[in-house]
Amino acid sequence: MNGRLLITCHDRHGIVAAVAGFLAASGANIISSDQHSTDPEGGEFFMRMEFNLEQGDLASLGRAFQQEVAAQFDMRWRLADGAAPKRMAVLVSKEDHCLVDLLWRHRRGELDATIPFVASNHPDWITDVAGFGLVYHHVPFPNEPELLSLLKGNCDLIVLARYMRILSGDFLEQVGVPIINIHHSFLPAFAGANPYQRAYERGVKIIGATAHYVTEELDAGPIIEQDVARVSHREHSDTMVRLGRDIERTVLARAVKWHLEDRVLVHGNRTVVF
Amino acid sequence: MNGRLLITCHDRHGIVAAVAGFLAASGANIISSDQHSTDPEGGEFFMRMEFNLEQGDLASLGRAFQQEVAAQFDMRWRLADGAAPKRMAVLVSKEDHCLVDLLWRHRRGELDATIPFVASNHPDWITDVAGFGLVYHHVPFPNEPELLSLLKGNCDLIVLARYMRILSGDFLEQVGVPIINIHHSFLPAFAGANPYQRAYERGVKIIGATAHYVTEELDAGPIIEQDVARVSHREHSDTMVRLGRDIERTVLARAVKWHLEDRVLVHGNRTVVF
Amino acid sequence: MNGRLLITCHDRHGIVAAVAGFLAASGANIISSDQHSTDPEGGEFFMRMEFNLEQGDLASLGRAFQQEVAAQFDMRWRLADGAAPKRMAVLVSKEDHCLVDLLWRHRRGELDATIPFVASNHPDWITDVAGFGLVYHHVPFPNEPELLSLLKGNCDLIVLARYMRILSGDFLEQVGVPIINIHHSFLPAFAGANPYQRAYERGVKIIGATAHYVTEELDAGPIIEQDVARVSHREHSDTMVRLGRDIERTVLARAVKWHLEDRVLVHGNRTVVF
Amino acid sequence: MNGRLLITCHDRHGIVAAVAGFLAASGANIISSDQHSTDPEGGEFFMRMEFNLEQGDLASLGRAFQQEVAAQFDMRWRLADGAAPKRMAVLVSKEDHCLVDLLWRHRRGELDATIPFVASNHPDWITDVAGFGLVYHHVPFPNEPELLSLLKGNCDLIVLARYMRILSGDFLEQVGVPIINIHHSFLPAFAGANPYQRAYERGVKIIGATAHYVTEELDAGPIIEQDVARVSHREHSDTMVRLGRDIERTVLARAVKWHLEDRVLVHGNRTVVF
Repeated sequence: MNGRLLITCHDRHGIVAAVAGFLAASGANIISSDQHSTDPEGGEFFMRMEFNLEQGDLASLGRAFQQEVAAQFDMRWRLADGAAPKRMAVLVSKEDHCLVDLLWRHRRGELDATIPFVASNHPDWITDVAGFGLVYHHVPFPNEPELLSLLKGNCDLIVLARYMRILSGDFLEQVGVPIINIHHSFLPAFAGANPYQRAYERGVKIIGATAHYVTEELDAGPIIEQDVARVSHREHSDTMVRLGRDIERTVLARAVKWHLEDRVLVHGNRTVVF
Repeated sequence: MNGRLLITCHDRHGIVAAVAGFLAASGANIISSDQHSTDPEGGEFFMRMEFNLEQGDLASLGRAFQQEVAAQFDMRWRLADGAAPKRMAVLVSKEDHCLVDLLWRHRRGELDATIPFVASNHPDWITDVAGFGLVYHHVPFPNEPELLSLLKGNCDLIVLARYMRILSGDFLEQVGVPIINIHHSFLPAFAGANPYQRAYERGVKIIGATAHYVTEELDAGPIIEQDVARVSHREHSDTMVRLGRDIERTVLARAVKWHLEDRVLVHGNRTVVF
Repeated sequence: MNGRLLITCHDRHGIVAAVAGFLAASGANIISSDQHSTDPEGGEFFMRMEFNLEQGDLASLGRAFQQEVAAQFDMRWRLADGAAPKRMAVLVSKEDHCLVDLLWRHRRGELDATIPFVASNHPDWITDVAGFGLVYHHVPFPNEPELLSLLKGNCDLIVLARYMRILSGDFLEQVGVPIINIHHSFLPAFAGANPYQRAYERGVKIIGATAHYVTEELDAGPIIEQDVARVSHREHSDTMVRLGRDIERTVLARAVKWHLEDRVLVHGNRTVVF
Repeated sequence: MNGRLLITCHDRHGIVAAVAGFLAASGANIISSDQHSTDPEGGEFFMRMEFNLEQGDLASLGRAFQQEVAAQFDMRWRLADGAAPKRMAVLVSKEDHCLVDLLWRHRRGELDATIPFVASNHPDWITDVAGFGLVYHHVPFPNEPELLSLLKGNCDLIVLARYMRILSGDFLEQVGVPIINIHHSFLPAFAGANPYQRAYERGVKIIGATAHYVTEELDAGPIIEQDVARVSHREHSDTMVRLGRDIERTVLARAVKWHLEDRVLVHGNRTVVF
């Protein structure tokens, strides 16, 4: 049994020893361990330990951990079952590059998830999604109530693979699972609409894409991953769009993979990615 | 004799043939040629031709070019003498990385320029600059009139190698030569003060630097070059500062080199870099 | 009518003027022009001009060009019809990432080509290829005669999208069209088999991929494009394989796109990519 | 008191708990911790822990660690004093870019080391080195005995900042400290002499540089860091040399910094860089 323990707390003397000692005493063999402190003197401490548990179950281990370690250090913590793939719903609009790439990576075994369905405000990708053996829901806009009934309780993660409709704060609250979006600019530059056109007009020499968790404030949630590509005066905004597609799909795939592997801890508006 | 002809005009049929034909008929051997059109139908056309002229002089060639070619196509054009290094004044404040790098590249022969002097609102780098055999003017702030009298008429280019004082619109107009600044962020993100601190707070995964021509609007002039470096949650704003130094000096050096080689054409708020 | 004129010859005075003058006089409007000389004094000269021809046809233009310009400068040249997509056959073995990416880009309109068929020594990808509406030939190994009869005369370009069988010199000669291969290392490092395993053993910190024209000597043909990705001690050769897939498909797609747009000139074992 | 504990051993159950528990019990506060296992089942385990020790000394801590932890797990380990800068001797020949960059970074406080002297088989850089307030030894080639008497016992690290003479196996053995070299190619491609010329001839699209520990076999020692830059057909081998300088100095500086911070563990011909 493979487990992943994620911890956030105030940095104090003895945390690593306490956690590692507890796991060793519980018969858990640590496979990988990462930690980070914003400041060893009174900063915030983050830790991810991946381990194999030869006997026992994660629920019991968690209860013991809370009593024996977490309470003492006032930890926020989470224990994820590495053998239980997350349920990942994908939302898409008119652009297929992120969708096709995610589905292909899923088929290749790169993404440890199940995909209960793909939903879209357009019917365009039904054949492609069926070709991957997956369910497609066409939910024309406006569609928040219908989307909500599809998603709520049926997924652990929502990926906006170029879903071009803004989700309301009420929707975010009710759906209750993390949402990863890919924004087609190097945030915080060109937040909002038409980033490639605005990048062209500003004359930038590098364009980018940003994968982030969705919060109520548009394009302002915690950034998980970013990447960039060079452009020159030769690129118009439409060739930037083409170059951008390659970055968008790659950045989104990395962010989703890291989330699925429980590597991302959110702290305020920043992320720690182990 | 080496010449560089830079042309901007509305795109029309026959420009390349007219320019190349004129140069060939004038005994100029084209070494390199670059062109760009924002749109072959009615867009803006840019060209740079570098050539060797076996006999004759550039001034005569220019007069003939105006009459025989430029007038007909309503060209804005400039003819630069490739054998005449530009005079490049360097302004610096408390950070030495861009300064030292420029002076070292100049000594290596990477930058085809003369450096009439380095000026600073601080006395810190006088020994370093003297070590490169160059003149250093310490001009304490406020200093625009004194700077102006040093610079005006004595340089063809001003490089702000991390000069941390804003120059007034009046100064820019009076000094009358291009000014290249290095901004320590990936513009347009984090324009203005303290970009690394703000990048840290926003939790970006990539930082950058931007070399641009100075205009009256702060950090909004035409971008010549940008580059980036990856950061992670491990970097605080002070380690970003260290990583950023390496990008800043490289980006500034590239922009300065291209300007000195007459490779940069400004068009509105964008640049064409051949 | 869109044409692309590609020229190689010894560098001499007046080439650009002659070519541009000829095109202008022929009613061709130059859209883009690139040139390169290995040495203005007696080096090799390369040029690509893309133009619109308002009336007339490319064949007549070519005949006139040979008489009026090419003969005089002893040029090797080629005139491609920009409106005639090339026929691109794709060969693949057990790995689908390059195949799926090429077919998807083709569907998106990124690659200006027709795909007469995909052929493979394995039956694995027949459903995927059919999903893109394309023909799939399963040609079990050994298969050179059958491949040859499929390919010869039916394509203008062959793309080895991770086709893992070596093609004989006799095959190359008979098939008579360019072949682009993607090698999963940063050539010339790790030419031959198992490059990721060997990269792991050597402890490199960066891996890469190389798209090149196939010649009789294994992995030694002219390089069209390369790209790289960082790896660390954390990567085993199998995670390198996964990271490498993203580079391979991108590098191959770029090389194929440039070839299809007649941007690649081969000179000895080197390429000029305009 | 700041200490860095570096451990290599066979991976077994309980290592992290044992080490962290020992440090906690000894009053050491862990600042950062990194670990890596080539395989949790019987692979090789690597660990670096940086800690503050409020009282006591590192020598006593080390003796206790050997008895209480290291013996039991059959560890190879090393305890470095984070407050004791290493003595770093620099060797250079005719190219100054790596030398100047190292000395400038040292002055900026980026490199936690003392520099007892710079030595060279040429007299060229004596003024520059004096400008940084450092000692310069001109030791004309052949010079191994003289170099050896300068270096032996007087440094903890030797940096070959483009020192273009091969050091004999006998020299390496006698000098007895690690030696970091910068090779101006992307090893293992173009090992040996004239890498840029050979890269040009092979027509690569990316060049690189490699920092590695020196072993008796030329350019075959464990790689610490590599980086690359794009080149095109426009670059001749001499412009590659110029572009390469920027990569070389950056790659060497990173490798040296990581070594000085005790972040590099060598394992066979590979490195783990924490």
